[in-house]
Amino acid sequence: MAAEQVRLDRALRYGMVGGGPGAFIGDVHRRAIALDPNTTLVSGVFSRNHESSMETARALLIDGARVYRDYREMATAEAARDDGIDFVVIVTPNVSHFEIAKAFLEAGIHVVCDKPLTTKLEDAEELGRLVKSTDLLFGVTYTYTGYPTVKYARELIRSGALGPVRFVNAEYPQEWLSQPAEQDEGNRQAGWRTDPAQSGASNCVGDIGTHVENMVSYVTGLEIDSLAARLDSFVSGRKLDDNATIMVNYRGGATGVYWSSQVAIGYDNALRVRVFAEKGAVEFAQEDPNYLRVTMLDAPKQLISRGRDSLGSRGDSLIRIPAGHPEGYFEAFANIYKTFTGALRKRLAGAKLDEVDLDFPSVNDGIQGVRFVTRVVESSQRKSAWVNF
Amino acid sequence: MAAEQVRLDRALRYGMVGGGPGAFIGDVHRRAIALDPNTTLVSGVFSRNHESSMETARALLIDGARVYRDYREMATAEAARDDGIDFVVIVTPNVSHFEIAKAFLEAGIHVVCDKPLTTKLEDAEELGRLVKSTDLLFGVTYTYTGYPTVKYARELIRSGALGPVRFVNAEYPQEWLSQPAEQDEGNRQAGWRTDPAQSGASNCVGDIGTHVENMVSYVTGLEIDSLAARLDSFVSGRKLDDNATIMVNYRGGATGVYWSSQVAIGYDNALRVRVFAEKGAVEFAQEDPNYLRVTMLDAPKQLISRGRDSLGSRGDSLIRIPAGHPEGYFEAFANIYKTFTGALRKRLAGAKLDEVDLDFPSVNDGIQGVRFVTRVVESSQRKSAWVNF
Amino acid sequence: MAAEQVRLDRALRYGMVGGGPGAFIGDVHRRAIALDPNTTLVSGVFSRNHESSMETARALLIDGARVYRDYREMATAEAARDDGIDFVVIVTPNVSHFEIAKAFLEAGIHVVCDKPLTTKLEDAEELGRLVKSTDLLFGVTYTYTGYPTVKYARELIRSGALGPVRFVNAEYPQEWLSQPAEQDEGNRQAGWRTDPAQSGASNCVGDIGTHVENMVSYVTGLEIDSLAARLDSFVSGRKLDDNATIMVNYRGGATGVYWSSQVAIGYDNALRVRVFAEKGAVEFAQEDPNYLRVTMLDAPKQLISRGRDSLGSRGDSLIRIPAGHPEGYFEAFANIYKTFTGALRKRLAGAKLDEVDLDFPSVNDGIQGVRFVTRVVESSQRKSAWVNF
Amino acid sequence: MAAEQVRLDRALRYGMVGGGPGAFIGDVHRRAIALDPNTTLVSGVFSRNHESSMETARALLIDGARVYRDYREMATAEAARDDGIDFVVIVTPNVSHFEIAKAFLEAGIHVVCDKPLTTKLEDAEELGRLVKSTDLLFGVTYTYTGYPTVKYARELIRSGALGPVRFVNAEYPQEWLSQPAEQDEGNRQAGWRTDPAQSGASNCVGDIGTHVENMVSYVTGLEIDSLAARLDSFVSGRKLDDNATIMVNYRGGATGVYWSSQVAIGYDNALRVRVFAEKGAVEFAQEDPNYLRVTMLDAPKQLISRGRDSLGSRGDSLIRIPAGHPEGYFEAFANIYKTFTGALRKRLAGAKLDEVDLDFPSVNDGIQGVRFVTRVVESSQRKSAWVNF
Repeated sequence: MAAEQVRLDRALRYGMVGGGPGAFIGDVHRRAIALDPNTTLVSGVFSRNHESSMETARALLIDGARVYRDYREMATAEAARDDGIDFVVIVTPNVSHFEIAKAFLEAGIHVVCDKPLTTKLEDAEELGRLVKSTDLLFGVTYTYTGYPTVKYARELIRSGALGPVRFVNAEYPQEWLSQPAEQDEGNRQAGWRTDPAQSGASNCVGDIGTHVENMVSYVTGLEIDSLAARLDSFVSGRKLDDNATIMVNYRGGATGVYWSSQVAIGYDNALRVRVFAEKGAVEFAQEDPNYLRVTMLDAPKQLISRGRDSLGSRGDSLIRIPAGHPEGYFEAFANIYKTFTGALRKRLAGAKLDEVDLDFPSVNDGIQGVRFVTRVVESSQRKSAWVNF
Repeated sequence: MAAEQVRLDRALRYGMVGGGPGAFIGDVHRRAIALDPNTTLVSGVFSRNHESSMETARALLIDGARVYRDYREMATAEAARDDGIDFVVIVTPNVSHFEIAKAFLEAGIHVVCDKPLTTKLEDAEELGRLVKSTDLLFGVTYTYTGYPTVKYARELIRSGALGPVRFVNAEYPQEWLSQPAEQDEGNRQAGWRTDPAQSGASNCVGDIGTHVENMVSYVTGLEIDSLAARLDSFVSGRKLDDNATIMVNYRGGATGVYWSSQVAIGYDNALRVRVFAEKGAVEFAQEDPNYLRVTMLDAPKQLISRGRDSLGSRGDSLIRIPAGHPEGYFEAFANIYKTFTGALRKRLAGAKLDEVDLDFPSVNDGIQGVRFVTRVVESSQRKSAWVNF
Repeated sequence: MAAEQVRLDRALRYGMVGGGPGAFIGDVHRRAIALDPNTTLVSGVFSRNHESSMETARALLIDGARVYRDYREMATAEAARDDGIDFVVIVTPNVSHFEIAKAFLEAGIHVVCDKPLTTKLEDAEELGRLVKSTDLLFGVTYTYTGYPTVKYARELIRSGALGPVRFVNAEYPQEWLSQPAEQDEGNRQAGWRTDPAQSGASNCVGDIGTHVENMVSYVTGLEIDSLAARLDSFVSGRKLDDNATIMVNYRGGATGVYWSSQVAIGYDNALRVRVFAEKGAVEFAQEDPNYLRVTMLDAPKQLISRGRDSLGSRGDSLIRIPAGHPEGYFEAFANIYKTFTGALRKRLAGAKLDEVDLDFPSVNDGIQGVRFVTRVVESSQRKSAWVNF
Repeated sequence: MAAEQVRLDRALRYGMVGGGPGAFIGDVHRRAIALDPNTTLVSGVFSRNHESSMETARALLIDGARVYRDYREMATAEAARDDGIDFVVIVTPNVSHFEIAKAFLEAGIHVVCDKPLTTKLEDAEELGRLVKSTDLLFGVTYTYTGYPTVKYARELIRSGALGPVRFVNAEYPQEWLSQPAEQDEGNRQAGWRTDPAQSGASNCVGDIGTHVENMVSYVTGLEIDSLAARLDSFVSGRKLDDNATIMVNYRGGATGVYWSSQVAIGYDNALRVRVFAEKGAVEFAQEDPNYLRVTMLDAPKQLISRGRDSLGSRGDSLIRIPAGHPEGYFEAFANIYKTFTGALRKRLAGAKLDEVDLDFPSVNDGIQGVRFVTRVVESSQRKSAWVNF
């Protein structure tokens, strides 16, 4: 089930919007892309402040002539070049994703956009229509589905070996907003995420709860039928949620509970998904991603080790080093890009893309994530009423 | 804060109702009591079937003259003896707890009763009134509060060191009812627990969810203000719940989520309580009870080790062996009894009992547990509506 | 492979030498015995100081008439009674084990003795001859072989499922003597153990290294052919070893390394045995005794859970409670006694004892332990020369 | 203590010898280098077979004109170019390291060489002299010292906070050679490593035991005074060792034991270092590298988390992503290169290098590693006699 690789005789070229000084996630995207050879950053608008943008370009040894004043100029100029970028990476705060993505799609340039896709559901849906009409590739960096162990969990459940899923318990606790960090001016990450003007209607669910939704959907294939949510805002003065509890009913009778939190002292980034099915169960913990816990009824608990035990053809194809040499977050991220760029190379070579080629988070995953945030906020505002998805 | 011990010049004498052949929990009570010296089983009705009851007595070398045909006869006869039992232990299926406990209280005999206290809230409340009017000691074996690490978690939170509690995530997953075990005639445990006639209105919440409620209440001191619950019954043909998700709002603004399950493949008896407060967090996992995880903001995570690190005076007083020599479930159980019998010895010696002496689960804890089950069932029947506690 | 149980119509009676105020291990023996019904303490010399001894008797509600001034008087008097003790438990410091055990054997009384059996090899061998000539039962409390998971590890290896053993890595680190605790007068445990007059030629190897030897021998069946040892004494002023590294060659070509330490800060009582064979490996960690890690070549690592997964008939017969309810050190200890008293009941009933009945550490295990300590000290004194066992 | 960074206005250029099709470690070096920006592969001899070499170049989009027939030609040609490589990376089998490193040093080119440095001690020492006389930078990729947690362990011990080190227990178990994998022709990794002609006098110690030596030396600063070693070869037909037990005496009185194995079923790559000092202890496990366990006497055990808790200025400077986003093997490797290329940039800019700049494994570390392998083999051949280091 590994994607067949097409080799071009040149490197892929990409540009970036966002990712300037002090930004965290732009740097992550660049390093993740660099883990695999032959994809090169050549252009960008790294900051709204052009001088900052140029400073980033100098640090990265990027030709200043391809550093633009804004994303519209960039989309137009790069689309016009013979050696223009093959795709753009959008890593700005949530609120600007929509306009930027739209601009590049309209310029005919493939897009990778950070999550959540947009802050409004109608914007996300418009992007979905644009992707369809332009037939361009569009990836959304729900990083955690890039882990080979996650791919294997999905494959296990799809195979039917565990029987139908009954219950899902998924959580994503962090501690980093336990204090009013947004009141510290130097903390840009906390600042924009807890600001409705930049982050949208939700902080905690938009930032990390949406990962929970995406992971469960990816691993189990379950579709949410309805949900009942309670959003908490525990830190005094905070404008958005920092803790969320969500009961979920799936189509077909399975149920679940999601918890995400940014005030969970003792937890760094502890996304964990537990899926209980009729004949077995599987458990993935993001902070220990080289292992997967699988238990079948009437058999001992198994600790599946990436690289030692087979993770299925899809998982095995996304491993860069033998077992016991820990792979981590960058490799998961790189796997999203490896799949996306693999598909793009095939597209550029005129080959047809199949399901495996397209095994990266799509615009539809992005739309579903925005819908999830929207429905959660809606239920919470209605005293945790059950809301149809 | 350790309870002062009073020594009698004789062993305490106890009787048991229930705990005959095939029963699991009666044996546990007997062993737990035996872990500490000087409390002796001398009487009982171990089964409704008198011959079975006598067989148990012979196996335990108990005088057949004090094995009775039913609990009423036992209460009357033992109350009349000079060397009658000091207390009775009730370990029958839930539905009979009330009548039996009532009979012994009315006979003037102290009582230890297994949880849940009763299957109906009004019965539990009547027991509460009886305990008050008779001034007898009454314990309910919510075992898990007996762990010294749990005592320490409570003490930490009470001390204010962690600041006010914000959020509680507590869970109790088991796998043992993943299949329709109640359809196997030999499986008495599964049979009565999933039978409304013996178990009451809930299986999963009554059996294990009530432990979650009790533990959170004990550790945090939080009082439930309202709850919204969803009960699932995943196994075909099952008459009662086998999985429960409960959102809780506490008085004062803290919130929580409880999950208990008997279809959680891969989990044996994994009660876990995580309490997140403003300045720190504490985590207890029943399957690893010799350790407590404590994290304070801005300091490394600590692994508190029973016996190595101080667990406060109450916790330290309930340790029987140095660190690294694992204590387990029987010791937790024994600590409930050690405290109960310590109080009883004091009472018999005419001493006054203080709060530390009474640090075992009381009839009020039992009532609260039954109220919890009642409210959960009520919310679930009303499509997870919020129900005042 | 479970031992068939014989039921007597009376409780077994035992006496104890040692175990008075401040002693740690006597209390452990008493509680472990009490975990199973029908074996009662009725006599003792709990201390050299008779008043202390009487105080212990009063605390335990033991008839003062059967508390003796010394062990010789006790052996004679109890042997003469119709209701005399069935067996004696010896829990004094190492140096007196020999004389006391000899006295009871010569009085015709069965014996359980703490480890190490003696401080001199010739004494141990003399006890071996006495046991043979008297045909009495003799147990040595190498506690850790009592864990059901250890029984299963042994059974796995014996079954041949893992193939021949190649290498053993066994360790027993503790931290409790990291400081000169023996200079604190109140610390009796540290005092006698580091005193050659009471402890013999070795502290660390005699106290805990001998457990390592016994466990490896029990689990693997390997016989030591030769060894090379280095003893360290890290704490200033300490007269005996507090850290030991031992390379072992077994008959048949397997090799091993043992490490035991009392200066290993961060470790409480962390006995761990790892056995690597041709086709698989097994790992037991005493601080997590409800689980066993088993890995077969070309299959995922398994976490065997006591109570959930079968531990073979011998292991399964020594479990008192379902999986997930942690059993610990007392249960392991109780299993030694359960097997010993089971054999004794059979003997008293005139039944024949088979291998399973005798699955408790014997006088021969005790002799081997003393030989191990002797050879280790010898090698260490000869600059870690290889010494034949 | 972070190294000050110098920025050049161009990328560093490097070449590679080895790392062609089927090679594992060359790919690792390339990816690790790529994790940080601005160091580019431009030249190489990737295989002895020129066509294979060219195939690698095409896959990596490297100019064929700079792919050479052998390393001598490459050294000469690159040294002659204005845009020649700044440094070479040597990733061939052990036996050829010496000649290749020598050629590049003599051509005036900086070198990074895989470990072990050479197969003969005199060759390693000659490289040491050459590095000194040429004043070129020379790195040896002892990867595991690149973990930020390892840097912090070193800093903790250096600071004196733990007091003097008493004992070290370090191990490196793997399972991958449990079977005669070298008899499978397709397994090039097993083939050359177990072949004395390519690997030198030791397989297991040369390949992984030398990492143990390097890590302990780096973390503790201890110098080996003497050692006694036993090498085992458990797999039938194997020409070199696959398991090694080594007792070590350090200068100053500390002692240690090292175990490395390639037949340890259940272990992937489980390098672990435990250092016990007078007042505390520290433990690092390579398979869980984002955490460090630190225990001080009389305080709870701490779990230090990379990114959450400070790892000292050196460790903190080598982190690329916040806590809870696992970093792994590639990041450790990248840290060796980040430090090496940082030093090289400073050198090229004419700046002076200080101790922090040079905090990567040096030729002297490489020499010490070869000496370690040599002494271990010597002791083993002399029946584990103590050998001066």
